[in-house]
Amino acid sequence: MQASDVFKPRSASIATVSLSGDLREKLIAAAAVGFDGVEIFENDLLAYAGSPQDVRKLAQDLGLAIVLYQPFRDFEATPGRLAANLDRAERKFDVMQQLGVDLLLACSNTQADAIDDDARAAADLRALADRAGARGLRIGYEALSWGRHVHRWRRAWEIVGRADHPALGLVLDSFHTLCVGDAFPGGADAPPGDKIFFVQLADAPRLTLDPLSWSRHHRVFPGQGQLAVAEFLKAVCAAGYAGPLSLEVFNDNFRAAPPLAIARDGLRSLLALQDETRVGGGAPLPAVGMHRGVAYLEFAVDADAREQFAARFAELGFVHVGRKRTKAVDLYRQGEVAVALNADPRGEAGGRARTCGPSLHAIGLAIDAPAAALARGRAFRCEASPSDDGVRDASSLVLRTPDRILIELLGPNGLNEVTARFDPVEDVRPEVGELIRIDHLAQAIPVQEMDGIALFLTAVLGLSAQQSCEIADPHGLIESRAMVSDGRALALPLNATKSAGTMTGRRIARPERPAVHHVAFETDDIFAAVRSMQTRGASPLAIPHNYYEDLGSRFMLDSEFVKILEDHSIMYDEDEFGRFLHVYGPAFANGFFLEIVERKGYLGFGAANAPIRVACQAHEYERNAELETQRIGAMRPDGGRPPGGRLATAAASPSTRRPAPTCP
Amino acid sequence: MQASDVFKPRSASIATVSLSGDLREKLIAAAAVGFDGVEIFENDLLAYAGSPQDVRKLAQDLGLAIVLYQPFRDFEATPGRLAANLDRAERKFDVMQQLGVDLLLACSNTQADAIDDDARAAADLRALADRAGARGLRIGYEALSWGRHVHRWRRAWEIVGRADHPALGLVLDSFHTLCVGDAFPGGADAPPGDKIFFVQLADAPRLTLDPLSWSRHHRVFPGQGQLAVAEFLKAVCAAGYAGPLSLEVFNDNFRAAPPLAIARDGLRSLLALQDETRVGGGAPLPAVGMHRGVAYLEFAVDADAREQFAARFAELGFVHVGRKRTKAVDLYRQGEVAVALNADPRGEAGGRARTCGPSLHAIGLAIDAPAAALARGRAFRCEASPSDDGVRDASSLVLRTPDRILIELLGPNGLNEVTARFDPVEDVRPEVGELIRIDHLAQAIPVQEMDGIALFLTAVLGLSAQQSCEIADPHGLIESRAMVSDGRALALPLNATKSAGTMTGRRIARPERPAVHHVAFETDDIFAAVRSMQTRGASPLAIPHNYYEDLGSRFMLDSEFVKILEDHSIMYDEDEFGRFLHVYGPAFANGFFLEIVERKGYLGFGAANAPIRVACQAHEYERNAELETQRIGAMRPDGGRPPGGRLATAAASPSTRRPAPTCP
Repeated sequence: MQASDVFKPRSASIATVSLSGDLREKLIAAAAVGFDGVEIFENDLLAYAGSPQDVRKLAQDLGLAIVLYQPFRDFEATPGRLAANLDRAERKFDVMQQLGVDLLLACSNTQADAIDDDARAAADLRALADRAGARGLRIGYEALSWGRHVHRWRRAWEIVGRADHPALGLVLDSFHTLCVGDAFPGGADAPPGDKIFFVQLADAPRLTLDPLSWSRHHRVFPGQGQLAVAEFLKAVCAAGYAGPLSLEVFNDNFRAAPPLAIARDGLRSLLALQDETRVGGGAPLPAVGMHRGVAYLEFAVDADAREQFAARFAELGFVHVGRKRTKAVDLYRQGEVAVALNADPRGEAGGRARTCGPSLHAIGLAIDAPAAALARGRAFRCEASPSDDGVRDASSLVLRTPDRILIELLGPNGLNEVTARFDPVEDVRPEVGELIRIDHLAQAIPVQEMDGIALFLTAVLGLSAQQSCEIADPHGLIESRAMVSDGRALALPLNATKSAGTMTGRRIARPERPAVHHVAFETDDIFAAVRSMQTRGASPLAIPHNYYEDLGSRFMLDSEFVKILEDHSIMYDEDEFGRFLHVYGPAFANGFFLEIVERKGYLGFGAANAPIRVACQAHEYERNAELETQRIGAMRPDGGRPPGGRLATAAASPSTRRPAPTCP
Repeated sequence: MQASDVFKPRSASIATVSLSGDLREKLIAAAAVGFDGVEIFENDLLAYAGSPQDVRKLAQDLGLAIVLYQPFRDFEATPGRLAANLDRAERKFDVMQQLGVDLLLACSNTQADAIDDDARAAADLRALADRAGARGLRIGYEALSWGRHVHRWRRAWEIVGRADHPALGLVLDSFHTLCVGDAFPGGADAPPGDKIFFVQLADAPRLTLDPLSWSRHHRVFPGQGQLAVAEFLKAVCAAGYAGPLSLEVFNDNFRAAPPLAIARDGLRSLLALQDETRVGGGAPLPAVGMHRGVAYLEFAVDADAREQFAARFAELGFVHVGRKRTKAVDLYRQGEVAVALNADPRGEAGGRARTCGPSLHAIGLAIDAPAAALARGRAFRCEASPSDDGVRDASSLVLRTPDRILIELLGPNGLNEVTARFDPVEDVRPEVGELIRIDHLAQAIPVQEMDGIALFLTAVLGLSAQQSCEIADPHGLIESRAMVSDGRALALPLNATKSAGTMTGRRIARPERPAVHHVAFETDDIFAAVRSMQTRGASPLAIPHNYYEDLGSRFMLDSEFVKILEDHSIMYDEDEFGRFLHVYGPAFANGFFLEIVERKGYLGFGAANAPIRVACQAHEYERNAELETQRIGAMRPDGGRPPGGRLATAAASPSTRRPAPTCP
C-alpha cells in the first residue's frame, strides 16, 4: 500500500469547554477517543482543585498536547488600562508556562470603553506580543463576532498586520466568520499561513438570532449544522495553515451529556470533515455506496412478545418462512419485506429483551458496498459487534449505532442472503401482499443524543438530514428530523423532546428503552391493505371525524373520497410533489406501532397530520392505562376501594400509578 | 361599600392552545380557575373525539363562552383562489355554528403566492364578511407579524377600513404589535372601538429572534415578559374596545405543564394587568406596602435533622431562645435574625419532613401592610392556609406560594410578635453576632414552574425580576433569575435548568423536594464571621487556589488581600456599584447550604463566582457519594467485593447507585 492510499487525519484538538465534567474528566474523555490535543478553557482551570503543573502532568500522561490557553478578554484599545492589562497578561503567562502551553487566544474587546482605533489596537497588541515573545510565548488575536469594534477576521488581520510582530498572529474561528455572513478567501486575498496561529472549528444550525446567543447555546460540531465549514477549512488550509484543527463548541445539550460520547462525536465530525475536504491528504475514506433499502428488521422478544409481534405481522400479511436451525429466531416475509423475531434467551438479543422489553435489535441494510461501509465505520471508531448472533452468521459485517442497534451491512440482494440462513418452515413461498418495502423507521431519542446519532448516520452511513419540523403533542413539542439516503431507500425520522409528558417523552424517560418504536411499510394500494388487515381481524387507529370534516376543505377533496378515507381511518397530506395516504395500527408490546403508507410522489412523512395522530395515540395510551388501573382495582379483595394491602400500595405508588399495558 | 370601591375585572378569556391536554381538559382547567370564555384553536378541535356540538355543550355546562374560533389562514389576495377559499370558509362557518361561536379570526396571508395588493385584500375580505354576515357570523382580520405583506395592525386596519363591511373588524394582538417595534396609538389615531372585534394579549422576553420563532416558543402571559403590554391594553381600551381580554400564548414550557397550573397563572396575569392598567374600573386591588425583610425562616425537620440544623446554626452564632409551649417548635436568634425548627410530627410540617425530608416550611415576611397583602393574595386566587401551625398562631395571616411554602404576613416589627409566641428557654438575650439579616433565599425549581412562581412573586408580593443570568455548572447550564423587592429587603433568586446532572437539576429531579435549599446571611464583617465560625468548629467550602491566582489579576487586588481571602475561603466580586465578599458552608441535611455575604454597595448575588462554587459543590457531592458507597461496601460481609446479599443489590441498583449522604 502506498502512502497516498492511506487516509491521513491532521492533528485533532478540542476545547475543554466543549465537554462536561471537571477538567480531569474532560481530558480523559478527549484522550480516550483519540484527540491529539486540547485547548484549556480558563474557567475549567479555575474550578479545578489541582495546580496547573498537575494539569500539565495529567495531559502528558494521557498523551495530549495542550495547544492553546483561552480566552484572554478585553485587552486592546482601552485607554488608560494598558499597563494594568499587561500586568494581567503576565499573570496568564505564568499560568501558561506552568501548563506548558505557548499560545494564548486574545479575543477582540467587547467592552463599552474600548475605542474604535486600529492603530491603538495594533500598538497594544504589539506590546502584548513583546511581553509574550520575551517568555517564548505567542498571542493569537481573534475577532469575536460580537466584539465592540472588531468582529470580522479581516479587521483582526489588518490589526495583526499593522502590529507586525513575530509573536502575534491570527486565530480563525469558523463560527465567528460564517455567522456574520463572512467567508475566508482563497488565493492571494488570504493572510499567509504562518500568520494563522490557530484554527477553531464549529458549525451551527441557521438561526435568526444574535451571534452571542447563537454562539453560546447552539454551536455544534462540523457537519451537525448548516454553516459552510468545509469551504472555510479548505480555504484556511489552502492559505498554508498547518496547525491543529480544533473544535470549540458551546452547546447546552453537549454540556449536559457524558463527556466521552460528546468527545467521540467531535472526533467523528473532524474525520468526516477531513474526508470531505481532503485537507489531510492521502486517500479518501471508503464510501458506503448507494443504499438499496432495509433488507430485514430483527426484534428481540421474549416468548409472550413473540406471539404479539407474530400476530400483528400476520394481520399485515406476513408469512412465517424460516427458522434458524440452532436458535429461536424466525423469519417472516411478504414479498420483498422481511422481519425476524429473535426469542433466543441467550446472547445480546436475549439480554436486550429482558432489560428493555421487546425492542428492535438489528437492521439489515442492503447497500452497494458493504465491505467498504464496514471499513468506513471502523475508521469512524464505531464499535464492532459480534457477527454470529440472531439473524447474522459468522461472515456477517456488523456495525453498532450510538444507541446500540446492530446494523448488518448486506449487498444489494441482501434479502436472499439472509433468507438462505434459515430453514424453511412452511411449504409456502413468501406471498406477494400489499406491502412492498419498509418506508421508514422512527425512533424516540433523548435531546442530548440527537446530534450524535444524526452525525453517525451522516458520516458513517451517508444519510442527509431533512429540515427539522415540530410536532405539537398534547403535552409538549416534539422535534422531528428525518435522516434519508440519496434516492430515499433508507429513511429514519429521529424524534426528540424536552417534555416528559409527550408520547416521545414517555418513551425517552425509560433509561433502557427500545430506540425504534414505529415501522412504516409502503404499499401501492392502501385501501386494499386496510381491507386485508380488517379481514384478518385488525383495526386501524381511530381518527376523529372532525379531522375529516376539515380535510375536505383544506385540500378541496371530493366528499366521497373523504368519506372513503374516513371509513378506512386513512390520513391524507399533500406537498408540492404529490399526495400521501397513511394509516396507523394500534400500539402493542412495549409501545410499538406500525404504519402503512402510500406515496404518490410525496416526499415527507405526514408531519402535518402528526399532531392529530399523537393526540389519538395519547388518548389510546391514557385509556389503556385507565383500564389497567381499573383491572388492578378489580383484582383487590375490596373491589377497588382505597387503600389497603400490597396491591393497593403498588397501584398508588408513583412508579405504578400509570401501569400502562403497552408502555408508550 | 360603594360600587367604585370594588375591583372590577373585565371578561377574561384564554385560547385553548395556551394549555396542555386534550380539548376537554383545557376547557375544564379554564373554567376551574375562573375564566369566562375560551378561544377554540382549530387543531384542538380536529384532534378531539367529540363533535363540535359536544364541545358547545361541555363549554355551556362549565359556564364558558366560546368567544372566538381560530385561525383561518391564507385567505386574502391570492389570485385564482377566492372561490375555493370562500368554500373553505363556509365549512368553517358550519363548524362555528355547531360550536355556537360567531367570530372567526382570519390572519394575514403568509403564502408566497399572496400578492401585495390592499384593494384586492379588501375586496376578498369583503366577500368573506358578506358570506359570514349572511349567517350571522363575523370576521376579525389580524396582522400576523410574519405575514407575507400585512404584518402591522395599521395596514390590517387600512384593509378593513377599505372593505367597510359591518361583519368585518380587526383582531389586535399585543405580541404581533409589540414584537415588530410597533405600538397602538391613543386618541384620534386609533381605529374606533367597535371595529376592534377582539383583543389577544401575550407578553414575551426581549429576544433577538425572528418573530415567528419568538412567537411560537417564547410567548408568556402579560407581566411574565418584557413587552409594554399594559400600555398597549390601555390604548386599546381607550379607543373604546369593550370585548373580552383574551390570552393567546404559545410557549414550550406551558405546553408541557399541567393545564390547571398554567390556567391559574393566566388568570393571575390578567388580574394583575387590569389592576395595573385600571381598565376594568372600580378600586385598585389592595397593595402589599413596603417590604421590611425576612422576619423568620421555619424549617420542617425530623429529630435527626433538628440536631444537624441546630448544630449548623449554632456554628454561625445563633442562640436557642424559645420553645412553643405545646409543640416541638424552637426559635433561634442572633440579633435581628431568626430561624425556627419545627420537629412536631403532627400537622403539615410533620408531613412535609416525612415526604420531602428536612425542608423550608414557612417564611415570615415583615411588611408594612400585612392585612392588605392577604386580601391581595386572596384576590389573586392564592390558596389560603391554616394559620395556627408551627411558628404561627390563630391570628396569623398566611398565604401559600405556588410551590406550597407558607408565607406569614407580619408587620414591620414582625420578629417581636413572633418571639412573643415562644416561651424563653435559656436565660440569655439573643446576642448580637456577626449576622445582621437574611440577604437572600435561593431555590431550585423545574423550568416549567419558573414563570408561574415569578408571576406569584411579582403580582402578589410586589417583587421585580432582575435580568436573568446563566451559570455554567460542570454538567449543564442553570438559569438564575433573582426576584427582589423595592429597596432589596427581600431577595429570592430562582434557579432552573434543563440539565438533570447539574446541582440544580439533581435537586429538581426529586418530585418531593425542598424548594429553598440555600440561605444567605448578611454581615458587616465577613472575616470576623468566618473566624467565629471556625472557632466554633466549622469549615467553609474549600475554593481552589487557581481561583485566587486569577482573582488578583482580574480585579487588580493587592496580593496580601487575596491571600487573606483565600485563607478564609472567601470569594470576591465587583459590580459598578461596589464590592461583594461571600463564603459558603458545606452541604448538610438534604443538601442545604448556608452562605455569609458582605456587601459594599454591590447589588448582585455573586453570579460571576457561581460556576466555581457549583463546581466545588459538585465535587463535594460526588466525593461524599463515593465515601458513602465505600462505607456501604465496608459494611458488607465480604468487605466490598461485588455482588451478593441485599446491601450489595441496593448499592448497585440505579436508584441507590449514588447514595449521597446529603442529597443535593
